[in-house]
Parts: sequence; C-alpha cells; structure tokens
Amino acid sequence: MPLSDQQIAELNTPAVVVDLDIAKKNISRFQDYANIHGLKVRPHIKTHKLPAVADIQLAAGAVGITCQKVSEAEAMVAGSDAIKDVLITYNILGAAKLKQLRALAGKVRLSVVADSAEVVQGLSQAFADAAEPLTVLVECNTGANRCGVPTPEAAAELAVVIDQAPGLVFGGLMTYPAPSGEAAVQSFMTDAKRLIEEKGIAVTVITSGGTPSMMHAAKAPVVTEYRPGTYVYNDRSLVTRGVCGWDECALNVIATVVSVPAENRAIIDAGSKALTSDLLGLTGYGHVLGREDIMIDQLSEEHGRLVTEGPIGLKVGDKLRIVPNHACVVTNLVDSLTVIAEDMSEPEVWPVAARGLIV
Amino acid sequence: MPLSDQQIAELNTPAVVVDLDIAKKNISRFQDYANIHGLKVRPHIKTHKLPAVADIQLAAGAVGITCQKVSEAEAMVAGSDAIKDVLITYNILGAAKLKQLRALAGKVRLSVVADSAEVVQGLSQAFADAAEPLTVLVECNTGANRCGVPTPEAAAELAVVIDQAPGLVFGGLMTYPAPSGEAAVQSFMTDAKRLIEEKGIAVTVITSGGTPSMMHAAKAPVVTEYRPGTYVYNDRSLVTRGVCGWDECALNVIATVVSVPAENRAIIDAGSKALTSDLLGLTGYGHVLGREDIMIDQLSEEHGRLVTEGPIGLKVGDKLRIVPNHACVVTNLVDSLTVIAEDMSEPEVWPVAARGLIV
Repeated sequence: MPLSDQQIAELNTPAVVVDLDIAKKNISRFQDYANIHGLKVRPHIKTHKLPAVADIQLAAGAVGITCQKVSEAEAMVAGSDAIKDVLITYNILGAAKLKQLRALAGKVRLSVVADSAEVVQGLSQAFADAAEPLTVLVECNTGANRCGVPTPEAAAELAVVIDQAPGLVFGGLMTYPAPSGEAAVQSFMTDAKRLIEEKGIAVTVITSGGTPSMMHAAKAPVVTEYRPGTYVYNDRSLVTRGVCGWDECALNVIATVVSVPAENRAIIDAGSKALTSDLLGLTGYGHVLGREDIMIDQLSEEHGRLVTEGPIGLKVGDKLRIVPNHACVVTNLVDSLTVIAEDMSEPEVWPVAARGLIV
Repeated sequence: MPLSDQQIAELNTPAVVVDLDIAKKNISRFQDYANIHGLKVRPHIKTHKLPAVADIQLAAGAVGITCQKVSEAEAMVAGSDAIKDVLITYNILGAAKLKQLRALAGKVRLSVVADSAEVVQGLSQAFADAAEPLTVLVECNTGANRCGVPTPEAAAELAVVIDQAPGLVFGGLMTYPAPSGEAAVQSFMTDAKRLIEEKGIAVTVITSGGTPSMMHAAKAPVVTEYRPGTYVYNDRSLVTRGVCGWDECALNVIATVVSVPAENRAIIDAGSKALTSDLLGLTGYGHVLGREDIMIDQLSEEHGRLVTEGPIGLKVGDKLRIVPNHACVVTNLVDSLTVIAEDMSEPEVWPVAARGLIV
C-alpha cells in the first residue's frame, strides 16, 4: 500500500522510500521495448544495489546483471540465487580485486571488460590456471570520452590480445555511449565487428547502455544487449530530459521542514548526505513533488535550503516528498530504505546490500 | 610512519588515508589561536566522525564537541569516555529523535539549538519530566541565510520562550556565520545579548563556527566559543581560499589509474562515490598532489576523469594522491579509513564510527 498520511507523518526523516510497483512498471516498460527489438537486457544494479530488485529484473526477462565493481557483484550474488550471469563493466586492476574476481568466477558466469593490454595482462595472470577461462569484452569509446579504446582498429588489436591470452576468452564489445550516440555506436561497432571477424574471432555480444537514450537503443541495430541502470527508479535528471514523468519516479526522499526562517525560505533535514551534490547539469538539488515553485538552491551536509519567489507556505514539521537529481547516488548513501507496494500489508525496511562499497 | 611507496602500491583503491600527525598540528594551530584570544573550542565532529580524533581535540583543550545529528552524537559518545559535553547545532524534531535525545542527555552534558517556538515546544515536551533540564541555545541568522532567527529582537523573544518552557534552560546564542561575517556576528550578538540580559536572563555562551574564517574569529570578541570542523583535515576548498597549504591536508584519497585512453586523458577508480560531487564553488573535483597541470573535470560514480593540456604522462596502474574538494563528505562515505602516524609501526585501519547516519 502507499504510505498513509499518518505513516508519512511518523517517518523518521530523511527517509528514502521506494515504490516497488512503480519500479516494476519501469522494468516492464524497457523489457517490452527490448523484446520488440530483439535486444537482450542486462540491467546495471548500481541504481538499486538490492538483490531482490535484481530478481524482479531477471524474472521480467533480463539475461543477467551489470555491476561496476567486484565488491558490488559479490554482494549481489551473495544475496540472490537467481543471479547467474554478471558483467562487470570496469577495468579491474590490482592483486586484491583480481583475487576476489577469481573467487567470484567460481560462483556465476562472469564477464569483465578491458581497454588496454595492461588490464588484459593482469586478468590473464589471475586466470591462467583457472578451470574455466574468464570472458573479456573490449570497452570502446564511442564518444563519451571516459574509458575505452579510441578506434575500431584498436578494438580489433585488443581483441586479438585477449584471444591469445592464457585464461581468457574474447567475449565481444562494450560501450557506454555519449547522449544520443546511437549513430556513433552503430558505426564504431559495425567496423570493429568486421575487423575482428576478419581475424577469425567471433563477436557474440555487443553491449551498450544508459537510461537517457534507452528508448532509442534500436537505432543502433548492431547492439545485441542493453544495460540501463537508473530506469528502475528514474529521477529528476530523467524527468528533465523528457524520459519519464514524476509519477514514474519510484524513489523519493521524504524530508521534514525544520525551519521556516523567512517568508520565502525553508530548511529541510535532507542535505548533501541524503540528496547528494550531484547536479547532472541541472540547477537545484531535487524536486519537491507538488511544488513547482520551490527551488532547492543550496545543500550543506544536513540542511537543504528551499526558496520561492512568493511566500513559501510551509510550517515547521511539514513533510515533503522529493525526487532527487540522481537516484543511484542516493541509494549508495543509505544502509536501508523503506519499500512500499500494493501487495505489502505494511511498508518494509530493506537493507541496501551493496551500498557504500567504495573499494 | 608515512606510507612507503610499496605500501601505496599495494593499497586496494580508492582508499582514504588520514595522516594523524598533520591532523594533530591542525588541531594545535587553532587551539593555540583560541587560547591566545580567550576563545573556547568546541570542534564539529562531522569532518572526522571518529571518537579517537575527538579525544585528541579534547586533550588539546577543546571544551566539548559539536554534532549536527543526534545519531552522530550517540555514535561519538558510545566510542569515547572523554566526550562529556556535546552541543547539537540542529533543530531536533519528531518523536524518534526526541526520544534518542532524552536518552543521550542522561549520559553527557547536552545542549541543542532552536530557532522557532515549534522546536522549543517539542524539546520542552520531551524534557518536561526529566531530572535535569536540557540546555537550549537560540540559533541566529547572522548572514548565512540558512537556519536562525532573523533579528536580535527575535532572538530575545525566543530566549524568553525557552526560559519559561518546562524542562529547558536557556543556554545562549549560536550562529553559523557567512564567510568573513565577523562584523555581522559581533553586531547581532551584542544586540541580542543586551536585549536578553535586559529581561534578566543570563547569556553565558555565544558560539560561532566555520573553518574558513576561524583565524579571524577574534574579530567578533562577543563570541565565547568557536566550532571549527574541517580544520582537522583541511581540503582543496580551504587551500584555494588561502586557509592552509597542501601539506596541511591530513586526508588524501589514493586512487589508481585504470585507463589512459588518450594522450591528455586518464581515468582513475575514484568517482563521486569516493570524491563526492561537492564543488563548494570550485572548478573540478579534487587536486592531484604534485600535478598542478591535471584537472579532474568529470566524475561518474566509479570513474574520475583527469585531463591535461599537454601529455598526461600517466600509465595504467599508477597510484595518485588526491586532496578532495570537501573532506567531511568523503569521511561520510567510507566504512573505514587508513590512518598513519610517525608513532605507529604500521598503518592502522580505523572504522568511521559515525559514518552514513542519514537519519
């Protein structure tokens, strides 16, 4: 059931509330799109960090999950029997992480990425004597200018290095595209696939991602698999970009007004420790539902400042529902969150299994 | 001992490292200034969230600690026998927090603040039948435009409300000033003190805070007590403002270069989950020690992007030491950190007792 006014009034704030019914609709919406277009879905769990939500994504048709860290993958696998296939879209380096990776590979079907020979060498050393080889995809820079080999030719070269490395098997190509980058993805991946296949190496997976452009994923038909993350909860950045509406935002922060020190200013108990300082190109730090006129113009750790042009019309003790700019980073900050759903008789408190894993 | 090159090479990154000797020097520097000027020091623990560091601050001469949350105060008191006097500089509202506050008041000398009759009423109800009254200071807005009563007259009115409220005793005046706000503090507090004393109520404490202006605290001689927080570690925002040098920054984030995908770009494994998105008015997300030419121009959760005008000269696997923009928010993100000191034979891993307490 949705939270009653009484339950909201009694919440100890700031509280992070997830509406599981909205999350399920968000999951279905993209799964339906992917099914129509013959795309596999591999959701990125960074947004929810909850094994139970991964289970819902897998039940809806996802082929596996995506993680950005070995530690997050460990926490997810430990929390769900349904997770059998994990892609870690990160260059994994260093003895400690490679050891963890090797241990995890014994539990699930595991793939990782690499964009340099140095990373491939580390992976190969760690898996040279493994019973099963580790699947490694080449990360490609298709315009986001973060990680990734710069050209299809470089992708083909690195595919050969992986193919020849003891303990490894080449798994395909991966990219995190620039916004509206479908044409660039299509062009880069088509060329890279051809160059790699010319060397007699199969390219079985081409994986792209990102919620903002997910409903245009089919514009790059070379892509076989898509990794949306934020789509499960949505947030203010996605509403602002026209990807969804406020009623499709599954994660809200409930805050209490702790001060109304001026006619056009109020202070809430959600600051950067709850809403985070992530702006994602926006102005202001979140949206107060039902109050288009309010700007959250400043955060300190424990205070959020709300300002209006006219009278703010709030009183001390009022509870507000806020859609944060960026849902993923909020999830990372909380040890647990309140989950509501029509088929729950009571709101439930769920620990966030993979929160706060910075290493 | 400082970390050896070997120890840095073996660190599992991103890692937060605190040099306790630098922290001790930072603590002494302000304590010496305060002693000369007859100011009491009540450090804000939000920066370190470590009972053992509070112990050092108290041993150096601090009269007590400042917290922003009841939950952080609980964690600090639970972790240190030396903490006997706690000021919570926050409007505390709601049944759950008031109950926690009442329990904590039985363990230490406790003060809180209020800036409205509503907050005073809640505190009074919670302490009406307590054996000892709760000390409440009036929070005053001296220009930062966050919380606080707007005028000395309003401060005096609220002081009377506190003085007459069952279970409470008026404790004085508190402000978090605007940058370089000493003149405004002096003027507001002098007037408020006079108005309150005219009503026959003593004003025993006038407390101000903030690291950026701490070495100018004596310019507001009406202030009796000062609450610096970030001064213990310092950070890039304070170096940029001329408050300290890089070698006075006690907290560093050690990151590994995971990709060098272009001649003038490198990617590290410290993103917004380690360095945070806090800009504090700066450009870029931290300073790479020894590399004035590098800009950390973009963070996603697990990637930090480093760019240079000329060749970046880094290779995959290199370790970098970074001074974050804002030390306090980094502390909140980590379950533990690595502590080094000349008198430690080995680096120690300390759990961050009061981290991640969003409620």
